[in-house]
Amino acid sequence: MPTNRRFLLIRRPHGTPVPEDFQLETSETPALEEGQFLLRNHYVSLDPAMRGWMDDRPSYLPPISLGDPVRASTIGRIAESRNPDFPVGAWASGLNGIEEYSLGQGGGFTRLVDETAVPKITNYLSSIGAIGLTAYFALLEVGQPKAGETVLVSGAAGAVGSLVGQIAKLKGCRTIGIAGGAEKCARLISDYGYDAAIDYRGKSGDDLAQAIREAAPNGVDVHFENVGGEILDAALLALNPRGRVVLCGLISQYNTAPKPTYNVWQLIVQGARMEGFILTHYVHRFGEAVPQLAEWVRAGKLRMDEHIDEGIENALPAFLRLFEGTNQGKMILKIAE
Amino acid sequence: MPTNRRFLLIRRPHGTPVPEDFQLETSETPALEEGQFLLRNHYVSLDPAMRGWMDDRPSYLPPISLGDPVRASTIGRIAESRNPDFPVGAWASGLNGIEEYSLGQGGGFTRLVDETAVPKITNYLSSIGAIGLTAYFALLEVGQPKAGETVLVSGAAGAVGSLVGQIAKLKGCRTIGIAGGAEKCARLISDYGYDAAIDYRGKSGDDLAQAIREAAPNGVDVHFENVGGEILDAALLALNPRGRVVLCGLISQYNTAPKPTYNVWQLIVQGARMEGFILTHYVHRFGEAVPQLAEWVRAGKLRMDEHIDEGIENALPAFLRLFEGTNQGKMILKIAE
Repeated sequence: MPTNRRFLLIRRPHGTPVPEDFQLETSETPALEEGQFLLRNHYVSLDPAMRGWMDDRPSYLPPISLGDPVRASTIGRIAESRNPDFPVGAWASGLNGIEEYSLGQGGGFTRLVDETAVPKITNYLSSIGAIGLTAYFALLEVGQPKAGETVLVSGAAGAVGSLVGQIAKLKGCRTIGIAGGAEKCARLISDYGYDAAIDYRGKSGDDLAQAIREAAPNGVDVHFENVGGEILDAALLALNPRGRVVLCGLISQYNTAPKPTYNVWQLIVQGARMEGFILTHYVHRFGEAVPQLAEWVRAGKLRMDEHIDEGIENALPAFLRLFEGTNQGKMILKIAE
Repeated sequence: MPTNRRFLLIRRPHGTPVPEDFQLETSETPALEEGQFLLRNHYVSLDPAMRGWMDDRPSYLPPISLGDPVRASTIGRIAESRNPDFPVGAWASGLNGIEEYSLGQGGGFTRLVDETAVPKITNYLSSIGAIGLTAYFALLEVGQPKAGETVLVSGAAGAVGSLVGQIAKLKGCRTIGIAGGAEKCARLISDYGYDAAIDYRGKSGDDLAQAIREAAPNGVDVHFENVGGEILDAALLALNPRGRVVLCGLISQYNTAPKPTYNVWQLIVQGARMEGFILTHYVHRFGEAVPQLAEWVRAGKLRMDEHIDEGIENALPAFLRLFEGTNQGKMILKIAE
């Protein structure tokens, strides 16, 4: 049996996770029971939501138990199998952990994937994985954008944000992206087709509100929030009547105490709506979104940059890039050739 | 022509309105043009939303112009008329001003009312006026309560809140009301049929969250917010998956700077929704709600206390009761016998 290196959560982080919160353990892979298989993980998806799962707080998924590997989406090949639906050599993805091998039995998020349907196998962790599905359902179902409307996106150069901008353009919307730094803002326009970009760095809340007003002279119909804090407050001020705020993420406060939002009164003034998004509520509809996303990817209509770091021993610094903003595109950890 | 006393806004209030912000002016009523009528206002509705209209801020209704009477719903009898649809002697209601006579021409919110359809003519300013319509549409359309669900209401002893609790019970929900003081809390249960009452006075945010958890052991499916601030934060913590927060009012901050909300992250964790309510979005559907509300009132299923102060010269202290919490029921100003 192969040995298995696993990146375990051994202490709940206070604020930004530190090395002492984790342990890279080497163990033996278990013997398979009937119906089980062993997945050799090649790529691990690193996502901001994983920070929330490290806390001891009831949520849409249970907290990661101390001593368990850090929960993450992975893609890999079946290495051993006692399940005829998951034959050795096939590619499969699932919600597993940061570990070289995951024990699987099908069901839940686990599914075989067709490596011929996409340009790169990592697309299943990015544009047509949880990230793509999040952008798709959160924008289209919660945001309900209509052609001609203005869609504002924070964290617009991030994995979800870059897709949201492109899908909104495919639906005929005008798109404005908010990101940190001139380089990211340039990328919003050149790579992701945003009509306008706003650099939040160095801007007060008032500056930001003013910049949004200038970029969206007709107001904002859909605001897609990945960040929170002052950015959310500024966006609320720009909302049009019956506007929709998609709360997809609040990365500005995942490692801190919750930040205040002052402008919820705008929801009353505009008769507007702010709604949280959880991908698990849409599992029954993945089947309609995956082919559409794959078609857009193959047609070159949906660009997603991937930032791939290597080595399970680099799991923590790679994960922390998400909060430092030093990744350029979807953050992925490669742990096998 | 009769003289007309009018309660004018002459300065925009900073914080709590003070006498210097207003002027009680006596003028002549205008000569009527063809199609116009003169409404002798008997009762004026005093509502928290009027505070927002005094600010110079774009909103769902334009700000009250300085020198104009304070905008308010009124009910009265047609005193003179050059409009055959509004005959002299008939009762009519509309969005007018705090003034003895309003010039009318029909349209907008102005309509004749049938004084035989309700126990008291003031019902048209309370249970089947804007207040009743707000409770009806905000709860049923935004909140979407289902039988067996738990509905939490802040400002539960107020005009809207007392109706929301009763309508939620009529729809088969369990109801929990939040109010200030033991007397109001007793009234929630004895008069408005709430299943449980929580007194927010003297409670920290943590105390309040704990009290809600105890009163709603299965969580909150619909939270109906009239207050804001710490109460909203505590309610957000109790939300169930797919919970709905109806933002109807934020009376805690109408006279102050906006208060922070810290727990919007709960909307993501629960895949929940917070939506602002504006009555003007439902004008086209008043026709379906008024008969239902009137039927409930006649059947004794919808109790609404009315707190009636007298005299247009008392407009300001009567209005301020809403913020002091010294009114017991829907606040109405009587300005003619």
